Amino acid sequence: MRIGVLTGGGDCPGLNAVIRAVVRKGITEYGHEFVGYRNGWRGPLDNLTRPLDVSSVRGILPRGGTILGSSRTNPFKIEGGVEKITANLAEQGVDALVAIGGEDTLGVAAKLYDQGVQVVGVPKTIDNDLNATDYTFGFDTAVNIAMEAIDRLHTTAESHHRCLVVELMGRHAGWIALHAGMAGGANVILLPERQFDVEKVAAYVEKRFETEYSPIVVVAEGATPLTGQMVLQNQERDAFGHVRLGGIGQWLAEQVEERTGKESRTVVLGHIQRGGTPTAFDRVLATRFGLQAIDAVHDGDWGKMVALRGTDIVRAPLSEATAELKTVPIERYAEAEVFFG
Amino acid sequence: MRIGVLTGGGDCPGLNAVIRAVVRKGITEYGHEFVGYRNGWRGPLDNLTRPLDVSSVRGILPRGGTILGSSRTNPFKIEGGVEKITANLAEQGVDALVAIGGEDTLGVAAKLYDQGVQVVGVPKTIDNDLNATDYTFGFDTAVNIAMEAIDRLHTTAESHHRCLVVELMGRHAGWIALHAGMAGGANVILLPERQFDVEKVAAYVEKRFETEYSPIVVVAEGATPLTGQMVLQNQERDAFGHVRLGGIGQWLAEQVEERTGKESRTVVLGHIQRGGTPTAFDRVLATRFGLQAIDAVHDGDWGKMVALRGTDIVRAPLSEATAELKTVPIERYAEAEVFFG
Amino acid sequence: MRIGVLTGGGDCPGLNAVIRAVVRKGITEYGHEFVGYRNGWRGPLDNLTRPLDVSSVRGILPRGGTILGSSRTNPFKIEGGVEKITANLAEQGVDALVAIGGEDTLGVAAKLYDQGVQVVGVPKTIDNDLNATDYTFGFDTAVNIAMEAIDRLHTTAESHHRCLVVELMGRHAGWIALHAGMAGGANVILLPERQFDVEKVAAYVEKRFETEYSPIVVVAEGATPLTGQMVLQNQERDAFGHVRLGGIGQWLAEQVEERTGKESRTVVLGHIQRGGTPTAFDRVLATRFGLQAIDAVHDGDWGKMVALRGTDIVRAPLSEATAELKTVPIERYAEAEVFFG
Amino acid sequence: MRIGVLTGGGDCPGLNAVIRAVVRKGITEYGHEFVGYRNGWRGPLDNLTRPLDVSSVRGILPRGGTILGSSRTNPFKIEGGVEKITANLAEQGVDALVAIGGEDTLGVAAKLYDQGVQVVGVPKTIDNDLNATDYTFGFDTAVNIAMEAIDRLHTTAESHHRCLVVELMGRHAGWIALHAGMAGGANVILLPERQFDVEKVAAYVEKRFETEYSPIVVVAEGATPLTGQMVLQNQERDAFGHVRLGGIGQWLAEQVEERTGKESRTVVLGHIQRGGTPTAFDRVLATRFGLQAIDAVHDGDWGKMVALRGTDIVRAPLSEATAELKTVPIERYAEAEVFFG
Repeated sequence: MRIGVLTGGGDCPGLNAVIRAVVRKGITEYGHEFVGYRNGWRGPLDNLTRPLDVSSVRGILPRGGTILGSSRTNPFKIEGGVEKITANLAEQGVDALVAIGGEDTLGVAAKLYDQGVQVVGVPKTIDNDLNATDYTFGFDTAVNIAMEAIDRLHTTAESHHRCLVVELMGRHAGWIALHAGMAGGANVILLPERQFDVEKVAAYVEKRFETEYSPIVVVAEGATPLTGQMVLQNQERDAFGHVRLGGIGQWLAEQVEERTGKESRTVVLGHIQRGGTPTAFDRVLATRFGLQAIDAVHDGDWGKMVALRGTDIVRAPLSEATAELKTVPIERYAEAEVFFG
Repeated sequence: MRIGVLTGGGDCPGLNAVIRAVVRKGITEYGHEFVGYRNGWRGPLDNLTRPLDVSSVRGILPRGGTILGSSRTNPFKIEGGVEKITANLAEQGVDALVAIGGEDTLGVAAKLYDQGVQVVGVPKTIDNDLNATDYTFGFDTAVNIAMEAIDRLHTTAESHHRCLVVELMGRHAGWIALHAGMAGGANVILLPERQFDVEKVAAYVEKRFETEYSPIVVVAEGATPLTGQMVLQNQERDAFGHVRLGGIGQWLAEQVEERTGKESRTVVLGHIQRGGTPTAFDRVLATRFGLQAIDAVHDGDWGKMVALRGTDIVRAPLSEATAELKTVPIERYAEAEVFFG
Repeated sequence: MRIGVLTGGGDCPGLNAVIRAVVRKGITEYGHEFVGYRNGWRGPLDNLTRPLDVSSVRGILPRGGTILGSSRTNPFKIEGGVEKITANLAEQGVDALVAIGGEDTLGVAAKLYDQGVQVVGVPKTIDNDLNATDYTFGFDTAVNIAMEAIDRLHTTAESHHRCLVVELMGRHAGWIALHAGMAGGANVILLPERQFDVEKVAAYVEKRFETEYSPIVVVAEGATPLTGQMVLQNQERDAFGHVRLGGIGQWLAEQVEERTGKESRTVVLGHIQRGGTPTAFDRVLATRFGLQAIDAVHDGDWGKMVALRGTDIVRAPLSEATAELKTVPIERYAEAEVFFG
Repeated sequence: MRIGVLTGGGDCPGLNAVIRAVVRKGITEYGHEFVGYRNGWRGPLDNLTRPLDVSSVRGILPRGGTILGSSRTNPFKIEGGVEKITANLAEQGVDALVAIGGEDTLGVAAKLYDQGVQVVGVPKTIDNDLNATDYTFGFDTAVNIAMEAIDRLHTTAESHHRCLVVELMGRHAGWIALHAGMAGGANVILLPERQFDVEKVAAYVEKRFETEYSPIVVVAEGATPLTGQMVLQNQERDAFGHVRLGGIGQWLAEQVEERTGKESRTVVLGHIQRGGTPTAFDRVLATRFGLQAIDAVHDGDWGKMVALRGTDIVRAPLSEATAELKTVPIERYAEAEVFFG
């Protein structure tokens, strides 16, 4: 069989580990052939390919990013996109696709499958917000990077008796903030799943200042204050037209400083959360995902994606990739709240 | 309620996170009081205690080891040991115990429970060899430390066209070697679960030398060669009387060098695998274990230990701590074998 | 002798190592006594003290920040401040001071010395911009943190064919940006010492995109574009009134994106550059600084600060702490330019 | 000009940074051409070459080891070796050599220079034992790796009230042990430069156990006990014939345990000290070494090697590479002794 591999969406530590596992097992155990498609769905759309054999995947396991490149191209939003892809696959003699990506990439995969393309998916979301799987690779790396940053910030906060607000990734789900905040000993953790009360945050901050330690507030980028408090914020930001400049972290630090009289600063971790070498957890998970994906291809089990359940790697319908978002449940947030203040 | 806390057995990153969670939730949510027992079961045996309040567990989350100290003391092997413990608990007004430890420590806890002591356990095994739980804290940290060492060794191996043999922890179960080896891109992984054939190892090593890369062989300390090959080894070692000096890693490197003619060296990671600050995974897992343990105490759910199943923290009978060892199943080893050679 | 120790200004990895060395050698070798002043010059001003003996400095070597706390208090800007300090020192029986801090803190120390206070200084500037010493502690740690962030960003940049602009500390001197940029393989490095031409930056970025790699632009927070290009920027930012929100990094990313048509993003490292455990270089340097400082105290060599020259720790007049800033010389910048584009 | 580049001796983080700087500046600023020689002096001896242009040195800066491979081949010990090299250079049209290596490699370079070969050297010694330069690259990385290991071991030592003996690299000079020991807060540091008294070591260990902390003893692999104590050791080891198995670390742990009655364990760091990605210090130093080396080539300043003096990169005669070893002076050891016990 001749199999195309592509990676789509935001980059994520572990993508190369998946590619390596797919190719290695596909060639050495099943005798398949591979073609690497560049830049997500742009690859099969424009026939952007690169060779993909055993030697080209040697040494890539510890490397972040993706050797195939990525993009957010959606062939269903391009006129004639799907026809072009199926024609190109046929022309190149590509029998099947392994698509590695998030909701968007796998959503395209699911639709192509409906149209007869033989495709298997590997889920990727650094935010860990996919219901079908216990964890996705990249998440553990992001959490560790954020935790190490919080570890560093504790000493600065204490030396200066300051409050530090750390803004982490998470537009719609707060998993990174929850785990990094718990692991980093944050004094308050604010998630998109639950509007927060600025007054309560300020109270936690003041309580912490009564100890010899200083407060660290972790806030997911998508967290929002209670409705009344929000209106004020949006108006303020609209007036300047630069909404994206000052995120929720900066706004919150200003509010905390105003209410507590304590110097408060913001750190926005941004892109460093998603780059660099993956943790062991992510390397092992991504490798096992890749192995299961090529097994599914070999079995002709099309329209499936791989997933982690407990310690097992299983297969689930591709359609689950676009199902409801996995958000932080109230019980998990309650665990974190034990340590607030 | 007045609750005693102790840690027993080998140290493990995450012990302090458990202690912190138990104490923090026990005091702030349930209003309990705590006493810290020093040095495992030696503590209640000899009334070695230290104060344990909210302020004494601040700042310990990122620290490896255990602020309570540890030991391998077994009160059942000391005459009158059990009576002494129950008398001491009564005298100190300690109503219940949270025992954090491995097979031995929890085995004692289970027996004490049988004799009427109100006890809840938290499992700890850096080797991840406990059937009752998907993972134990400390394991992820150990695997990451070992993986980083393997990452470093790759460049040395390649620069000198050498084979490097890395000996990792794991006397009876090879989980650390399996995960660190997979994550580190080892070319052969040898586990206690399966006798290995030195000739095959040498063949993998030679195959790797045909590429531009050099082989890394990961061997768990408890791995053993095939029976015939073993006899030779034991005789040799007996003659010198220094069995413990040269471990399996060193023996294997010598055998590989002899068979392949390629320079081969050994690295024994040893104690650095179990020390230092825990990873985010271990800090979160240990924290959640601690929270569930104090909930069990609060519920009067004695004779239980906490465990991870999927993404949930559940309770299991303490007796499961001493049940059959969780070893690496054949399917998991087969995943690793894909990348051999 | 009874000696007061204080730390002033921004926190910096290595402060605790200095304190430990001063106290340890002062007590065990010279038999002095110590008093810890809290929060910089605020300490002797308001008699804020804490005990400082051998046991209180155990275990602090690897910890970032300062166990004494810090502040930017300047007694010369407070009416009667100096008199209050001298009176407090006399009252507490403090014979001499070891002041650890930057330009401001040591400037106060120099003036107090002129007024008869027995003081020895230890220079601290994470920016490495002090002429009197080859390096200061904290700088190496900051550079390593920044380099690791740049390492991570490379994979993201490449996966998405993006330009990433990394804004690092350095208002007046670009040492952190120069070293972290060289170490991280940045494609352009922009320093406060030299106005940059946005057109040239864009040209380097485009040149890099011709390879299989993507550009990383490192910019010190104090770097500025050529005069004509600046005016435009200031006007634009004034209109929104939020000058501090979008730093030079953000502005530059927008300019680059406009000129090259390539997606460009900014990362502002901020406070994580100065927190956390010090590198070995900084721990050794800070320890040696502390040892030399207490030797100077013991010798009665007042009005001096310690400094690194080559591999030696020497003493220099305190007044040098406030001498001309050490900026990046043209030859050092030329070294970095070899790798531009 | 056509320039050959080679790396010899043990691998060392920073070698690739040197190669990159030499090639990059040589091509883009001077217009030279390069040929990469594989495996040290074996390369020019057997005409083992690989292409070396700008694209082949992209992305290698953060990688440990050497893309050119290394060996300990000495052409002066091979009959006709030198003639073969000069003939090969002529045949390949190679006008000059940049030799990167330690005492042996640069010793060969110095002799070849005496015979008319146009050569420039870059010193490499992870042990930092070269008199001609303040520091060599690789040393800082090794010290940081060792320090991080010591940081980890502290928590294990304390949890178990154990003494841990850490054996570090350093056969003839104790720089790694000195710096890593000081940075890691070791309680005793033992160097090859000074025979140690086992009784004193045991006394320091006992003193440390009086605190709440546990002792870490750092010993360089080349350190030796006082003469009387040594004889015993050698006899013992001879009887078993396995001298190389148990190093000084193991022997010392046994002696300490015997004398103090406290459990004592050994960790031998071994090869992980020399592998993996270089620190910022080493990347910058190695890059600057490479730039200066190609400048020397361009200037026709043959027979020189580059060196660090203070913050400057200078040139020194190649012959200095084989001059007297730089050992740890008594004053530097005295600094460390302040913290013993």
